[in-house]
Amino acid sequence: MRTQVVIIGGGPSGLLLARLLHTKGIDTVVLERRTEAHVLARIRAGVLERGLVDLMAQAGLDTRLRAEGIPHDGTLISYDDTLFRIDFKAQTGTSVMVYGQTELTRDLYAARAACGGGIVFEAEAVQIHEADGHAPYVTYHVDGQQRRIDCDFIAGCDGFHGVSRRSIPDGVRRDYEKVYPFGWLGVLSETPPVADELIYANSSRGFALCSMRNPQLSRYYIQCSMADSPDDWSDAAFWAELRRRIPTAQADALVTGPSIEKSIAPLRSFVTEPMRWGRLFLCGDAAHIVPPTGAKGLNTAASDVQYLFHALVRHYDDKDDSGLDGYSEKALARVWKAERFSWWFSSLMHRYPDQSEFDLRIQRAELEFLRSNDAAQKAFAENYVGLPY
Amino acid sequence: MRTQVVIIGGGPSGLLLARLLHTKGIDTVVLERRTEAHVLARIRAGVLERGLVDLMAQAGLDTRLRAEGIPHDGTLISYDDTLFRIDFKAQTGTSVMVYGQTELTRDLYAARAACGGGIVFEAEAVQIHEADGHAPYVTYHVDGQQRRIDCDFIAGCDGFHGVSRRSIPDGVRRDYEKVYPFGWLGVLSETPPVADELIYANSSRGFALCSMRNPQLSRYYIQCSMADSPDDWSDAAFWAELRRRIPTAQADALVTGPSIEKSIAPLRSFVTEPMRWGRLFLCGDAAHIVPPTGAKGLNTAASDVQYLFHALVRHYDDKDDSGLDGYSEKALARVWKAERFSWWFSSLMHRYPDQSEFDLRIQRAELEFLRSNDAAQKAFAENYVGLPY
Repeated sequence: MRTQVVIIGGGPSGLLLARLLHTKGIDTVVLERRTEAHVLARIRAGVLERGLVDLMAQAGLDTRLRAEGIPHDGTLISYDDTLFRIDFKAQTGTSVMVYGQTELTRDLYAARAACGGGIVFEAEAVQIHEADGHAPYVTYHVDGQQRRIDCDFIAGCDGFHGVSRRSIPDGVRRDYEKVYPFGWLGVLSETPPVADELIYANSSRGFALCSMRNPQLSRYYIQCSMADSPDDWSDAAFWAELRRRIPTAQADALVTGPSIEKSIAPLRSFVTEPMRWGRLFLCGDAAHIVPPTGAKGLNTAASDVQYLFHALVRHYDDKDDSGLDGYSEKALARVWKAERFSWWFSSLMHRYPDQSEFDLRIQRAELEFLRSNDAAQKAFAENYVGLPY
Repeated sequence: MRTQVVIIGGGPSGLLLARLLHTKGIDTVVLERRTEAHVLARIRAGVLERGLVDLMAQAGLDTRLRAEGIPHDGTLISYDDTLFRIDFKAQTGTSVMVYGQTELTRDLYAARAACGGGIVFEAEAVQIHEADGHAPYVTYHVDGQQRRIDCDFIAGCDGFHGVSRRSIPDGVRRDYEKVYPFGWLGVLSETPPVADELIYANSSRGFALCSMRNPQLSRYYIQCSMADSPDDWSDAAFWAELRRRIPTAQADALVTGPSIEKSIAPLRSFVTEPMRWGRLFLCGDAAHIVPPTGAKGLNTAASDVQYLFHALVRHYDDKDDSGLDGYSEKALARVWKAERFSWWFSSLMHRYPDQSEFDLRIQRAELEFLRSNDAAQKAFAENYVGLPY
């Protein structure tokens, strides 16, 4: 079997890349280790930068997103009982779009099915061969049978735990990592969101985030110990703790209900360099992870996809490899800016076990500077809505 | 003996406060532990915010400052061989003034002498009494004789090691501190500065700063170990190390010469709260220290002086104590912003022994963001030229 581009990983990055390449007549096969149902059951972020919305439009897949997505023109930030707003629209002319990653993935799957594009589910023991040569191929097992696909290029969209990054030899690859000393306990509930926009809350008890998927579906998070288990937290305990971490007016207005999902996620910053090795190109979580503060994960994956898409089109249409040759450097330049923002915003909002009283005052001073300084708000807004590709 | 305000400390804060109060007919006595010659021999910062220049004008003491000071409309920042400029004038409409703290102190001493204002030099064993009562007084020794001055208020302008802060009881006072794991080795030399503006340099070998006092007098610094002694550094070794830390073009253009002063200073962030206890008011280094990155030390002292000056005038002229009552809160709000900026700018520019490879990349990403983002430059410029009083 042969295709032009093998895409390893059937999450949103892989599917978006496949769809974009399809619009240009470039053939792909997508290999996914899990089932479609498993992929669609994953609860992930839900704030899309305009760049990603534009890519979905370019893919011809923005109808439902525009109908059901909720544009957010700003965000709320609180510390103790002080609440202020950063106005994205006024600062940058741009909004972000609240639309669950699950919904976006669903749209991409539907489109892939409609065009008859290949997705191999439950592809096990995926291996990348000869990525640094002229004739790469990928092997995998399905139903106990080994298969092989020859290709021109391989896109590694298989996430942090996937095989793609690990296929780049240690001597070539360099990893950069920071693990945060806490997690996020997240609850999904069929309740109206407490505010029309997100609230990022710094409190003496730790961080909290009031987010949403739609007007009837709220997503809330509180900073927790990684030693905690979701079972340690009854719904009542979660709501009580959330109330203590947000301003009084919002705590009073909070509508609570049974959780329909409850989980704890670790926070990690991670980047691998380079993002290209021969004919293998890494995209998204395969190459980099951000803490979720600021919702840069999916959006940064999308910027990788955009760079790689254009580079592949230039290769096939114009016999011009400059995009492929420059992919790693170009993608990483933007990745590191997103990493910096996510790290900084995490540092601003969380309690750290080793924070001194001085550090806490500096954090407070930074929040007060952000609240009162227009240029600081503009820099924040530009990062939040997404730096230019 | 009796006066309205006893000012402890004859450095620039104390003298500026004395001078401003004198213009409003408020009597002061200044107590200084050292001799005038000693005070004037201290080499300190040399970048004045516009707020301080305006205060000197209000004090009627800006003639020499305006004639000899050098307005700087921007600053240069480098990392490795990349150099960029932040344009204060374009971003904020304001410049800073390069004028040595020693020169400013000299102007203040000359004015104090001209108006016959009292300065007691070599005042030893200064003690503050009854600051929390209605009749405070200060005792000290001169020539082995104990003296006493009764007063309405005491201004503690006696620096980090002075008696004023320590006179506030431990249960009332809270200190916040961060000590940096390195120092600055500074050299003064009678050579033309390498550039028309300051260069703040981040390099893999550590921080460097190219500064100046006037067109024939340069002040350079390199980050060093606090275990070093100035004697460990020959002039040749200093110049060679400085050259390695600044961009090639500037390294090639650097004019070197014999050092006329060479010293190592520690870097510390420190704030004490509150800044007022009864009738004692702390100003400047007595209450807070910043690392010198960004030159906020003297400038932040000046903003304290400005708040206290206006509060005292309102007390005496209008019988309105709201300025005195609000002094600590008002001064500290601005102090913490200057602390934040100095801490952040230090973090951006130095090498730290515990920095991981990830931390170094984040530092680099932050420099690249600052280089490329207009809003970030504006926020920087607004801090550098001085936030509004």
